[in-house]
Amino acid sequence: MGMQRTPLLMSRLFERGAAVAPEAEIVTATGSGTRRQSLRQTIERSHRLARALGDAGVGIGDRVAVFMWNGSRHLEAWCAIVGMGAVLHNLNVRLPPADLEYIVNHAGSRLIIADADILPLLEPLAGRVPTVEKIVVGVEEGYGNWSTAVAEAIDYEAFIEPWSGRFAWPRLDEHAPLGLCYTSGTTGNPKGVEYEHRSQYLHTMAMCMTDAMSLSATDAVCGVVPMFHVMGWGLPWAAMMLGCKQVMPHRFTDPVRLVRLMAEEGVTLATGVPTVWQQVRAVCSDEPGSFDLSRLSRIVSGGSAVPESLARWYWEALGVEMIQEWGMTETSPLATFSRRARRPDGTHAQAAPEEFLEDVSKAGQALPGLEVEIVDENFDPMPHDGRSTGDILVCGPWVCAEYYRQPLRESFHGDWLVTGDVGSIDGNECLILSDRSKDLVKSGGEWISSVNLENHITALAGVAQACVVAQPHPRWEQRPVALVVLDEGSAVSEDQVLLHCSDRFAKWQLPDEVLFVDSIPLTSTGKMDKKTVRANLRAADYRLPDLR
Amino acid sequence: MGMQRTPLLMSRLFERGAAVAPEAEIVTATGSGTRRQSLRQTIERSHRLARALGDAGVGIGDRVAVFMWNGSRHLEAWCAIVGMGAVLHNLNVRLPPADLEYIVNHAGSRLIIADADILPLLEPLAGRVPTVEKIVVGVEEGYGNWSTAVAEAIDYEAFIEPWSGRFAWPRLDEHAPLGLCYTSGTTGNPKGVEYEHRSQYLHTMAMCMTDAMSLSATDAVCGVVPMFHVMGWGLPWAAMMLGCKQVMPHRFTDPVRLVRLMAEEGVTLATGVPTVWQQVRAVCSDEPGSFDLSRLSRIVSGGSAVPESLARWYWEALGVEMIQEWGMTETSPLATFSRRARRPDGTHAQAAPEEFLEDVSKAGQALPGLEVEIVDENFDPMPHDGRSTGDILVCGPWVCAEYYRQPLRESFHGDWLVTGDVGSIDGNECLILSDRSKDLVKSGGEWISSVNLENHITALAGVAQACVVAQPHPRWEQRPVALVVLDEGSAVSEDQVLLHCSDRFAKWQLPDEVLFVDSIPLTSTGKMDKKTVRANLRAADYRLPDLR
Repeated sequence: MGMQRTPLLMSRLFERGAAVAPEAEIVTATGSGTRRQSLRQTIERSHRLARALGDAGVGIGDRVAVFMWNGSRHLEAWCAIVGMGAVLHNLNVRLPPADLEYIVNHAGSRLIIADADILPLLEPLAGRVPTVEKIVVGVEEGYGNWSTAVAEAIDYEAFIEPWSGRFAWPRLDEHAPLGLCYTSGTTGNPKGVEYEHRSQYLHTMAMCMTDAMSLSATDAVCGVVPMFHVMGWGLPWAAMMLGCKQVMPHRFTDPVRLVRLMAEEGVTLATGVPTVWQQVRAVCSDEPGSFDLSRLSRIVSGGSAVPESLARWYWEALGVEMIQEWGMTETSPLATFSRRARRPDGTHAQAAPEEFLEDVSKAGQALPGLEVEIVDENFDPMPHDGRSTGDILVCGPWVCAEYYRQPLRESFHGDWLVTGDVGSIDGNECLILSDRSKDLVKSGGEWISSVNLENHITALAGVAQACVVAQPHPRWEQRPVALVVLDEGSAVSEDQVLLHCSDRFAKWQLPDEVLFVDSIPLTSTGKMDKKTVRANLRAADYRLPDLR
Repeated sequence: MGMQRTPLLMSRLFERGAAVAPEAEIVTATGSGTRRQSLRQTIERSHRLARALGDAGVGIGDRVAVFMWNGSRHLEAWCAIVGMGAVLHNLNVRLPPADLEYIVNHAGSRLIIADADILPLLEPLAGRVPTVEKIVVGVEEGYGNWSTAVAEAIDYEAFIEPWSGRFAWPRLDEHAPLGLCYTSGTTGNPKGVEYEHRSQYLHTMAMCMTDAMSLSATDAVCGVVPMFHVMGWGLPWAAMMLGCKQVMPHRFTDPVRLVRLMAEEGVTLATGVPTVWQQVRAVCSDEPGSFDLSRLSRIVSGGSAVPESLARWYWEALGVEMIQEWGMTETSPLATFSRRARRPDGTHAQAAPEEFLEDVSKAGQALPGLEVEIVDENFDPMPHDGRSTGDILVCGPWVCAEYYRQPLRESFHGDWLVTGDVGSIDGNECLILSDRSKDLVKSGGEWISSVNLENHITALAGVAQACVVAQPHPRWEQRPVALVVLDEGSAVSEDQVLLHCSDRFAKWQLPDEVLFVDSIPLTSTGKMDKKTVRANLRAADYRLPDLR
């Protein structure tokens, strides 16, 4: 044994941040403004919470669910649960009650830590989640008068009040489970992905690299991505490890409030899905000069493809580099970053805007340690030529090996996870997403990428958002239809959209119809909800023009 | 098992670089200029070398020694040996023959890969290293006419010529040994430190972080640190993983040639001990404007303390940020970095030169994953107040747990390595080195830091270098003496040095004498060789002034 056998535990990482940057601020948005505490206080309070949880009977391996907005208590809950060796079960506050019930029961969570303002969302679970012994309620301004019938409940502050001093974080096996996230399938029940200390530790190290997010302790980060969504893309862990200032929007995610918070707190890096950044762009464009975002340098966007036109606006209007990441619940979630090096003589964004804008339209290169491959239907690898399109596989130490208590063989192939995404890989190993397999449009035996059409339509002046879905056709099997949201005051016509598309797409790839709508429904994680779009069209008895 | 059990193997990292940046250049200095090959060619040639080594009987766990300057074949040897699961044994070309003989025999190396120009240094080993079956000789311009009596020898190119295609890198246990480095003790035989794939993998990930070296694939790196010195501080591994351009000086390390190489190749980041950067400063000062170092942005310096005056010169004259690192063979070697975050609103160097210059005079904060502590003689932790001085301990996944085939209990304390360095830790967890324990001056029961005196003397205009050593004294036990090298044409007097020192040091801490010398002897790794300085003074029958 040449080297020390130090297990890769998350407690080592968050305790480091509290030691090297004890005064780093944790800012939480509240009804009337913000409240703040230091990173040291946050970790100290997590020790007290762990002692209270231990006293309540929570032990190593027990699942503790968290049903909260991004905020300081949510951070404390993460550190307490994970540090003591229990399993952090993220509950998505936007899920329907039936899914929540299934997930809590499937995980067998013993405790729920919840924000008072969203307790009503849990009420349908009363009497239906027998494993839950207690609810610990975080109370923010204006929500002192709460109650719940789901289980015996106690105020968070009252829960930790009797406890002081440190919890001796156990020296766990690094493969010990750290967290559980459920991902909603297109069919069937949500599937659980169980993270390990080791996998999340390695993920945290990788995302801090220069060619990923280049996170530094000098950053003030704002995760607009909810912490209940795949560990908040790992940002809270990385920020705690380095000792960054963290700015947490809590439930105040409307774009105006968000932009004001980012400006006032000097946020340097923010993370979120493209729809958030489209809304922020609208706010900034409506009131140019009203918000000082001069400290903002990077936006990390993912969850769905980033339109190049959006990245270009942020670069040209604000000097902000947009970085695309790709990943999923099963990959912890970060797998690839678009921040590809172009030449050995400068930083990425400074070097050449045109090149970095071309890069950001791709999902990017795999983080060191992960491998990405594309295969045909026989699982044979396909050429990395930027054109050949295949099923995307991924493997590595922070990639899911199996679902939690649910065998789903078809999701795995040897060492690889079958992602369900479809794309190509270019000569520089940059992944280019075509679509989710289920969102591809299959027309006359050929595939049409809805993502490519959407990105192209969104680049047209006057278009705010575009969503392309398949509709059934007796002859072609499927044909694409585009739903388009226009900017206020814009008067783009169907013909203009189709003419614009014919610049880049073949005639048979063009949408059969362009429907102008007021908004596109979003999923619980802020992506365009194509399942609902298709269901709405079906409910309205939509027919393609040539079938009317 | 929630997550994939992907072993942390170095082959995953260097193969990544060859895939994402196949055309990244590997530049090697030669007698008449440079020769270049791509990273893809380098990795392809490493596969051929591995096949040749396998054919020569080298298997998993066998030690293969490398006795080479920094160059492309040295990189190929690293990847071949490590990729195939053999153990890379770095031989320091500056060691005396007796040490080389001991090390080769202690490691039991089966093969040596050596540069032709330094074969003569191996000749004293002829007939004395029975395990060595073969020498593979890398031949650079001007050294075609080589021979050796140490073992059967073959030209490197002839050795790999019959082989083509890929070696299937085995899926090793991540704790499998990767390399062996020997560290020369002050007494006794050199001690071997055995690195693992896992330890070097984690070290590689950590050093790329923004708050460490912030390495990016856009960097062109020049490791002036020899690769035979503690894995070249890990820089070749990191550069291969990311796909950086690598500029390798081979045997041409005289400062003028080095500066010219760095300028011509557009080096952005360089690593080396402070004496190298003092020499480079002298070259640049002698011929201002002769070398275009405008692309250089960071110098990472370590191995001994960085004088603030040196860091200030690089910042003010070249706009280059100097980063101090601290570590040792036993820590793989990087443990701390001085690049401490000051505030969440800008990059490190840009923020405030005075603050970053204050930081660079410290060894810095531990990399995420490592812990550093200072203790008294009973191993009780001492306060982190920036004043209390104790023995420095370190632990973590890339810290030595035991020496290779040599039990040395006193070097370890529980989970901790006892480093032999002495220092304090400030309120922000920044380590401040006082000295090697053996280099402290003990006067009248009090300790005097030779490093602090040296840094202060070096800051005096006209002083090029300073070395403070203890000399025996019957009453005080020891007293400090300073050896000083002046800049050319400078006429600083002893009184001026002492007056300057009395600005910061108490009277009893001042050197008893200042000796002006032409040069300070250096160790094989370029640090000031205080052992030789003390031996020279003894040989010259030196006596302190009040004992004459």
